[in-house]
Amino acid sequence: MHHLLSAADLSREEALSIIDLAEEMSEVQTREVKKLPVLRGRTVVNLFFEDSTRTRSSFEIAGKWLSADVINVSAKGSSVSKGESLRDTVRTLSAMGVDALVIRHMASGAPAQAARWTQASVVNAGDGTHEHPTQSLLDAFTMRRHFRAVTGDPQADWTGRTVVIVGDVTHSRVARSNVLLLRTLGARVVLVAPPTQMPSGVDSWPCEATDDLDAALAEADVAMMLRVQKERMHGGYFPTAREYTVGYGLTRDRLAALRPDAAIFHPGPMNRGLEISPDAADAASSRVLDQVAAGVAVRMSVLYHLLGGGSTAPLGPTTTSAEADRKGPTA
Amino acid sequence: MHHLLSAADLSREEALSIIDLAEEMSEVQTREVKKLPVLRGRTVVNLFFEDSTRTRSSFEIAGKWLSADVINVSAKGSSVSKGESLRDTVRTLSAMGVDALVIRHMASGAPAQAARWTQASVVNAGDGTHEHPTQSLLDAFTMRRHFRAVTGDPQADWTGRTVVIVGDVTHSRVARSNVLLLRTLGARVVLVAPPTQMPSGVDSWPCEATDDLDAALAEADVAMMLRVQKERMHGGYFPTAREYTVGYGLTRDRLAALRPDAAIFHPGPMNRGLEISPDAADAASSRVLDQVAAGVAVRMSVLYHLLGGGSTAPLGPTTTSAEADRKGPTA
Amino acid sequence: MHHLLSAADLSREEALSIIDLAEEMSEVQTREVKKLPVLRGRTVVNLFFEDSTRTRSSFEIAGKWLSADVINVSAKGSSVSKGESLRDTVRTLSAMGVDALVIRHMASGAPAQAARWTQASVVNAGDGTHEHPTQSLLDAFTMRRHFRAVTGDPQADWTGRTVVIVGDVTHSRVARSNVLLLRTLGARVVLVAPPTQMPSGVDSWPCEATDDLDAALAEADVAMMLRVQKERMHGGYFPTAREYTVGYGLTRDRLAALRPDAAIFHPGPMNRGLEISPDAADAASSRVLDQVAAGVAVRMSVLYHLLGGGSTAPLGPTTTSAEADRKGPTA
Repeated sequence: MHHLLSAADLSREEALSIIDLAEEMSEVQTREVKKLPVLRGRTVVNLFFEDSTRTRSSFEIAGKWLSADVINVSAKGSSVSKGESLRDTVRTLSAMGVDALVIRHMASGAPAQAARWTQASVVNAGDGTHEHPTQSLLDAFTMRRHFRAVTGDPQADWTGRTVVIVGDVTHSRVARSNVLLLRTLGARVVLVAPPTQMPSGVDSWPCEATDDLDAALAEADVAMMLRVQKERMHGGYFPTAREYTVGYGLTRDRLAALRPDAAIFHPGPMNRGLEISPDAADAASSRVLDQVAAGVAVRMSVLYHLLGGGSTAPLGPTTTSAEADRKGPTA
Repeated sequence: MHHLLSAADLSREEALSIIDLAEEMSEVQTREVKKLPVLRGRTVVNLFFEDSTRTRSSFEIAGKWLSADVINVSAKGSSVSKGESLRDTVRTLSAMGVDALVIRHMASGAPAQAARWTQASVVNAGDGTHEHPTQSLLDAFTMRRHFRAVTGDPQADWTGRTVVIVGDVTHSRVARSNVLLLRTLGARVVLVAPPTQMPSGVDSWPCEATDDLDAALAEADVAMMLRVQKERMHGGYFPTAREYTVGYGLTRDRLAALRPDAAIFHPGPMNRGLEISPDAADAASSRVLDQVAAGVAVRMSVLYHLLGGGSTAPLGPTTTSAEADRKGPTA
Repeated sequence: MHHLLSAADLSREEALSIIDLAEEMSEVQTREVKKLPVLRGRTVVNLFFEDSTRTRSSFEIAGKWLSADVINVSAKGSSVSKGESLRDTVRTLSAMGVDALVIRHMASGAPAQAARWTQASVVNAGDGTHEHPTQSLLDAFTMRRHFRAVTGDPQADWTGRTVVIVGDVTHSRVARSNVLLLRTLGARVVLVAPPTQMPSGVDSWPCEATDDLDAALAEADVAMMLRVQKERMHGGYFPTAREYTVGYGLTRDRLAALRPDAAIFHPGPMNRGLEISPDAADAASSRVLDQVAAGVAVRMSVLYHLLGGGSTAPLGPTTTSAEADRKGPTA
């Protein structure tokens, strides 16, 4: 594995390897001394053409905890303001000798383009309305933990579980990456969107699609509420905020109707009172902060998979759950 | 001590412990290799909603010299521009597993709010017109050094000293934190402000208040000139620049009238020619750059107190001046 | 050597020492673990008053690979927006105890001014239309490598080589530093500019000057195309983009007319189609990415020369090419 550009590129084995190593990495998160020497002397550049506190900080922490050097480059304060092309920017940073470029870009496909221009590993940290593969990995990680917790079965995984993803699917890179990865991992995905926000080609996606939120939620093991991009609400395709909440928000009533072991997911930042009610955001079944915590562990695992090089286990000879998992009923 | 939110929270013993350890930390500042391993594997986030080169750099250097990982998050280039609430921002960073949040915010009370939402230690790095406790600690540190230097008495401290603080007291977090801390440490504080810039409730503060600068300066061991916030000068409450300088500036004449062992303080950045004349800013008795240097040492000490954990001395078994101090005449 | 303010300050021996150590440093760039412990505990501040992805990242990577702590301070998000003078900013950072200030500033002479106000080492990272000495060092480094590669002579250097520098020379700090350094190193420099963009005092410079690009290129061992500052193109002194390309661009025709062993240089970022055609930018003889790579190695060498302190070789007792070089025919 040299790049991580799309959730579609991950085989089941690769996805499990990342998620299983993330389980080990998450143990580091709870230590007093959060530091592993495994990427010492490697250099990771966060190349962000769009703002994102969460994703940038998460990758920066992940890199630093693995002892990598991390360099932040944002579009503001960069040669981009001098009109340098993405190609020249990527080739320039690459020529300096960096090992990985974590790229967020407003244009779908930019990280894949970048990967053609560099020897460094490229991680797609969100490109336009296309994909956000590390988000889907942290979601899958958090789901598996949830399924294991509610069933008490340490072998439980995504098989046969129903994940309902709700919102402006057309413009959601989170939805797209989750559909692709969860399919690989064996879950059933149901997309719910207002008709104007469901992609026209959704029939060919490996999932179901509906505009009936209540019916979908009745079957949900996971209810994932997408963030409303308020800047899109001014176009004619978008209902009013109130209409949106009534039709597609996780209101207090819908919260009460969820199955008792269902989990609530949101990629953040949340618009409380719009796509998710405050009660739902802070419910005991909300896994929103677990998703954030998982983000660091998953990104540590991704960076280690891309840059770690050897076959040596980063955390010593402890047995990973991956082995057990692969022998499990879903393998 | 888990947070540092207000100078009022510090007992005399705690304040002395921070200031005494800062004396040891300041020794590191003079070394060729400025690095202690004591916070290796701890993560400090500088969460700045207002610009500040000085304070942000000072905390960043302090954290790095203690071997912590330091992550900068500024309001620009952050989820704040997507409307994420302070609560969600704090809970998100906290969930990632960071150990300390150093928060500067334009709203008074924001760091105290944040402290309720996180397991991490919160340091108030300046909140609105409320407080700036590390500034008062570095001021107290610098004053004690000054008193010891001018008296030749290694036990000298703040007891009975007169600190005159001059400027827009109503809007000054520096003044507020200094009043609280210096009272704890035994100094007499005299506030000087134009009548429109003196807080209405100042009678209940543990200090004196006047608008007669010359009378106050005649008794000053320390003359601390507050920065004029030029953006406030357009309101009706503010005199013209010339009027301000005549009434409340440390002019050349007032510099000449200071007692010979009096020290000049300013939290920076200075408006030379407005609240402080160039002569005063650069006078031999100006401690302005000592304050800056003390800032790094004090912040190292604060971070160590909050995150250092054990009872072990960070710099080995050297005797601290704290012990001697506590046995001194002012204890 | 305590500061690096101007290429003119470098003796031939100093310049060779920097370039030779950069050869050793560039070896680190190809390692899996890019990290030398030589500047551990030293603090480098990147103080940038103008945007520059390339230069800032290059210095940041260089500092980190030498294990220094690196702090970025940009004019945006700094006290500069509160009107603090350069002097106070420099003295403040200096008082904190930093070891080097890498300064980019829009005003010619700002780094030299700064050097008077601080004990720290100052590196000029580009000041107005004045100088950019590390750029000229990386150019010289890249040229020597090129000359050695094309001749097969490991002792080859700049002696007798013709370097043609083309563009708005009046406003180019790159041109100015290259003229000064290349003269010291023995090259012949020919400046080519439209008459309105050639400095009036160029007759006193240690180089030749012409507006006949084709004649100059016929003799070029190196053709260095300067970046057109598009923001300058609106003044009356500037030809149209098309006129500029016809008269002073490295077009496809001119690329074909270059001598077969001539190299193409550009400090980046490139305006493809304006001062350099895409064919020339990506030609086999283009050394543009080599220049970028050299930037990190040269800046590691510069930081080591300024902060490394001892006489010890940073990379152990390996023989440097400097020794051989100094005994060479040009010494």
